[in-house]
Amino acid sequence: MQEESASPSARPFDPGCPLTRDTEQGEDRAGRAAVDFPVAVVLPAGGCGERMGLPTPKQFCPILNRPLISYTIQAFERLSWIGTIVVVVAKENQDLMLNIVQTFNHTKVKVVNGGTTRHRSIFNGLQVLSNNTDDALTTKPKVVIIHDAVRPFVEESLLLKITLAAKEEGASGAIRPLVSTVIATTLEGYLDHSLERAKYRASEMPQGFLYDIIFQAYQRCSEYDFDFGTECLHLALQYCGTNAKLIEGPPALWKVTYKRDLAAAEAIIKETLATSACVITEAAAEAVELAGALQKNLATQSMVQLNVTKRSFDTQKTDELTSFRRLASEIKQGNVLLYGIHIDHTEVSEQWERSVARLADITGALIRDRNPALIGQLLHA
Amino acid sequence: MQEESASPSARPFDPGCPLTRDTEQGEDRAGRAAVDFPVAVVLPAGGCGERMGLPTPKQFCPILNRPLISYTIQAFERLSWIGTIVVVVAKENQDLMLNIVQTFNHTKVKVVNGGTTRHRSIFNGLQVLSNNTDDALTTKPKVVIIHDAVRPFVEESLLLKITLAAKEEGASGAIRPLVSTVIATTLEGYLDHSLERAKYRASEMPQGFLYDIIFQAYQRCSEYDFDFGTECLHLALQYCGTNAKLIEGPPALWKVTYKRDLAAAEAIIKETLATSACVITEAAAEAVELAGALQKNLATQSMVQLNVTKRSFDTQKTDELTSFRRLASEIKQGNVLLYGIHIDHTEVSEQWERSVARLADITGALIRDRNPALIGQLLHA
Repeated sequence: MQEESASPSARPFDPGCPLTRDTEQGEDRAGRAAVDFPVAVVLPAGGCGERMGLPTPKQFCPILNRPLISYTIQAFERLSWIGTIVVVVAKENQDLMLNIVQTFNHTKVKVVNGGTTRHRSIFNGLQVLSNNTDDALTTKPKVVIIHDAVRPFVEESLLLKITLAAKEEGASGAIRPLVSTVIATTLEGYLDHSLERAKYRASEMPQGFLYDIIFQAYQRCSEYDFDFGTECLHLALQYCGTNAKLIEGPPALWKVTYKRDLAAAEAIIKETLATSACVITEAAAEAVELAGALQKNLATQSMVQLNVTKRSFDTQKTDELTSFRRLASEIKQGNVLLYGIHIDHTEVSEQWERSVARLADITGALIRDRNPALIGQLLHA
Repeated sequence: MQEESASPSARPFDPGCPLTRDTEQGEDRAGRAAVDFPVAVVLPAGGCGERMGLPTPKQFCPILNRPLISYTIQAFERLSWIGTIVVVVAKENQDLMLNIVQTFNHTKVKVVNGGTTRHRSIFNGLQVLSNNTDDALTTKPKVVIIHDAVRPFVEESLLLKITLAAKEEGASGAIRPLVSTVIATTLEGYLDHSLERAKYRASEMPQGFLYDIIFQAYQRCSEYDFDFGTECLHLALQYCGTNAKLIEGPPALWKVTYKRDLAAAEAIIKETLATSACVITEAAAEAVELAGALQKNLATQSMVQLNVTKRSFDTQKTDELTSFRRLASEIKQGNVLLYGIHIDHTEVSEQWERSVARLADITGALIRDRNPALIGQLLHA
């Protein structure tokens, strides 16, 4: 009778860095070579999330114990060629935001107070970068990227394209095809006309600008545009005559807007995490064999690591089970979820194979669901 | 020592009818009173789902073992004032669709072959309804609702508004505010101009029409519109001079377009199911007390039912556990997921309360996740 269990000293997943993939290290080197000028990010996060139907503004909603905005910050922070991330939040959320920065160890973030509208908030963010002070975080950048706090899945390849096009053309922005037909309505609520879908695009984020252009556009911006405008590309065109270069982005760029989008974002994050799971077993020959079978059945995209640890529980003894559950509760504080799976070792190969398949099923389900309510349970394969 | 387990004879959730709520029975009566004329639905389901990045067209993707399109059909079928649902599918999916109709017991569905474009498919669906035959399913309707197979969460209240406005005005359609700014692009891929977001809306589904109007519009429709058009409201305007009445719909109307939308749809369905869970316990006094606590801690919105059953397992005996697991496998065929939760009955009230809280936690998690890989497991509260 054997017992598989994760060792608390070896972290099966690094909770601090869920969305970084190994392949991106190579990309980051390429990015550093291509971007030899200072780049900053402005992240307006002042929204109050009234569309969600939730009390918490959506950018602060937790996904797997981490606020959405922290994932977005991380998408930029991990890139060595990005120097500063200016996060603009409503005054009442400033403490919350500073707390997030500290908890999740964000080192490139500067928190700034927002204005009454989106454009005023972005302008506040840009102003912080306008003068060369001694603070390395507020050095005036060549290019500034403007993004949304609620679009966590932005990839380096797109950020590179946006940044280089902004340097070249003065302004650039991500676009997507329209999912619905857009129509103009009469004042009485009837159809006036519909637009031909193929001729239009949805303007998404990120957008990039030469800092001097977008800062000047905001300095010249009318009160009307400040209060009712929604589009930074429009300001660059209107006030500086710069026609932005448009770059088609992937579907994952979408904006977390409704409550259902949180479920979708969670599913994407879980899927990413599940492909980088480690399996930790005992050193015994059967365990290694088992781990091989597991790796095959789990079909994870990246390699399954095998760390070796020796720790066993006598499943017949109640106090051993209790101490296993206590251990699970303790290490949950460090965001490690510990489940036990019991498997009978048998020489009957058919039975063994069935058990291994069930073990893989259960393991896959546990990794996918990451259910904290089930930690410390002893399951049977 | 007690053991809670669901009895296989009493179904804790009815898998056949997950999205119907009790409150809608009253609504349906109101609908029947308001709609005293024949109404049919045309559901184009010919899409091949290339945007999903999945091999299965999205309307056939399973959510909790039931294809997406079956949820959509059900949203109409449960309304007594809707007579026929014409589902238009590509020829290669006809058998699959007939199989779904049979498996999920859809009684109002007529399956029709699709055309090469969306408009041609809808026209095929309308043609089936054009002549008065003896088949009750193809009686010519007064009003026809056109909807998408991939928008399962359409509520009766909106369908009523759409239907009555169509009868009154000739055409009607659901709209939503734009989430992104819409922009026009130059041929070279630069920003030409951006539209003022407040003046435009996204045209969504459902849409309603007097049958005679939309059928005539399709009969007059140009080849260009048949091949490149995307908007039925446009056809009613262009070919019959009918300006559709526009009605703002709820966010849940959105179209399942990308892979992440399947996760969002699953979350919504699970949430609906979780609020109508039953708890089935033994008749013992402690069990009833426990059930009360459970109901409180689970915070389900609808009532938790208590069915009484007598079935116990000796958790120390391996063969009893094996037979519990076998039972779980058997009833899984009927879409019933069986999990065991072991709880020690104790007189120490603090310990008991902790156990009950953990029981509620685990139960809530199991109901929410509905993980088939964990059936037959014996968990400890």
